[in-house]
Amino acid sequence: MKVLEISSSKNEYYKNISKLKQKKYRHRASQFLIEGIKFVKHALEKGEEMSQLVYCSDLINESILESILRTIPDRVQVISMSKNIFEDLSDTVNSQGVIAVVQMRKQVLTLDPKGLYLALDQIQDPGNLGTMIRTADAAGFSGVIYNKGTVDPYSEKVLRSTMGSIFSIPLTTCEDLSEFLRDAKKQGVQVLCTSLEISVDYSQVDYKQGSIIVIGNESQGISTEVFNESTQRIKIPIYGEAESLNAAIAAAIIMYEATKQRR
Amino acid sequence: MKVLEISSSKNEYYKNISKLKQKKYRHRASQFLIEGIKFVKHALEKGEEMSQLVYCSDLINESILESILRTIPDRVQVISMSKNIFEDLSDTVNSQGVIAVVQMRKQVLTLDPKGLYLALDQIQDPGNLGTMIRTADAAGFSGVIYNKGTVDPYSEKVLRSTMGSIFSIPLTTCEDLSEFLRDAKKQGVQVLCTSLEISVDYSQVDYKQGSIIVIGNESQGISTEVFNESTQRIKIPIYGEAESLNAAIAAAIIMYEATKQRR
Repeated sequence: MKVLEISSSKNEYYKNISKLKQKKYRHRASQFLIEGIKFVKHALEKGEEMSQLVYCSDLINESILESILRTIPDRVQVISMSKNIFEDLSDTVNSQGVIAVVQMRKQVLTLDPKGLYLALDQIQDPGNLGTMIRTADAAGFSGVIYNKGTVDPYSEKVLRSTMGSIFSIPLTTCEDLSEFLRDAKKQGVQVLCTSLEISVDYSQVDYKQGSIIVIGNESQGISTEVFNESTQRIKIPIYGEAESLNAAIAAAIIMYEATKQRR
Repeated sequence: MKVLEISSSKNEYYKNISKLKQKKYRHRASQFLIEGIKFVKHALEKGEEMSQLVYCSDLINESILESILRTIPDRVQVISMSKNIFEDLSDTVNSQGVIAVVQMRKQVLTLDPKGLYLALDQIQDPGNLGTMIRTADAAGFSGVIYNKGTVDPYSEKVLRSTMGSIFSIPLTTCEDLSEFLRDAKKQGVQVLCTSLEISVDYSQVDYKQGSIIVIGNESQGISTEVFNESTQRIKIPIYGEAESLNAAIAAAIIMYEATKQRR
């Protein structure tokens, strides 16, 4: 196996990989970075399109590295990087010494009129977004849709919170979420917007029909245009003194209720 | 109102307040710091025992400051701090210019044999802990118990994630969680440990009796000694490819199922 050795941050390959730490370059190149042994192995198992595999011999366990290198397709460029510049690339404190450049999937969502979907309106917290993708996967949802104002799912913090579910559940972005919901309703899918105001208890809703559960921004909630597309407004009752629930928690409670009804 | 002005980090009051950023000093003094307008107002509304209120004129809105000062009891020492040292004390990027020193409540939990409780075994992530306290409050739980290995709930990150619920729900620590659970079982309370192995679906459990839901460490799960105290082992089914759920998400799904059954 041919291995490219890089020890300078001025190297062109290094510069291009490093640029993927920024959102605009990620989307220009349709590529993103994943880090850590488990995440890289998971991407390989899922057959994700990988263009480069970067490791640092000072940080990675030799036998683990060998087991990874044995499974990577020939077309993947393998790079051995010196510790000083690898650590600049890495986003973790105790790096496991492996990073991969992965191609974003083409994201065309074909709405299943009987499916269950999670739609996100301007979610800002990376941990929340990642956790919601992970929970939607666990709950067996058909997909996650997010609009432009939502934090980039291919950022390092979001990816880490997805715990690999980024490769398991269809993820689609849309320019205008209200338009997307309008179209979905024409196909008979109900749009359920969470709300703290007059609304139906989330456990009283019939989730056996195709449904999109909409979760809004952490501080502003769902925007008016999106809210206006609700088929039903739903809420999770609060019994204590808390004013509200965390967005990812609210999403999880409703998604698992929906899933439970369908068993 | 007498206001103490501090502009040096060598001032004794400053040094003592600053020490509360460290766990050992917090617990030695039984005091902790809260930051932000909403949080400070909430503590005052809840009648929490406050010993000092610190503000920075360069950062806080004058009328908001006045509204806070109007409501604080006489015994609270009011400190005006210069910006440079206030910012060292502050834990946020865009500080709202107000911090308070609050007394920890005496934490004696009298177990209600009909109550619903959340017990935490060595939770490590501050955001998870704070979110679980917030969700337990929202779900109307009777209390949260955590053991020694759990991250300190009075640390800044946990407090921020509780969104004020730290003042709403009884919170108790215990040296030995398995001993606590053994005692609880003698009072007829069932102990429900989450598990990925052979176990009952969380929605098939009867939560109408007194119950303690146990959530374990994010990577190790529940420790063996605690697990051995289970009355029942419960699990949340996973339908997709995710290996597991985030700890705070799992806790929320079970807590809301329990609450729903009791309505």
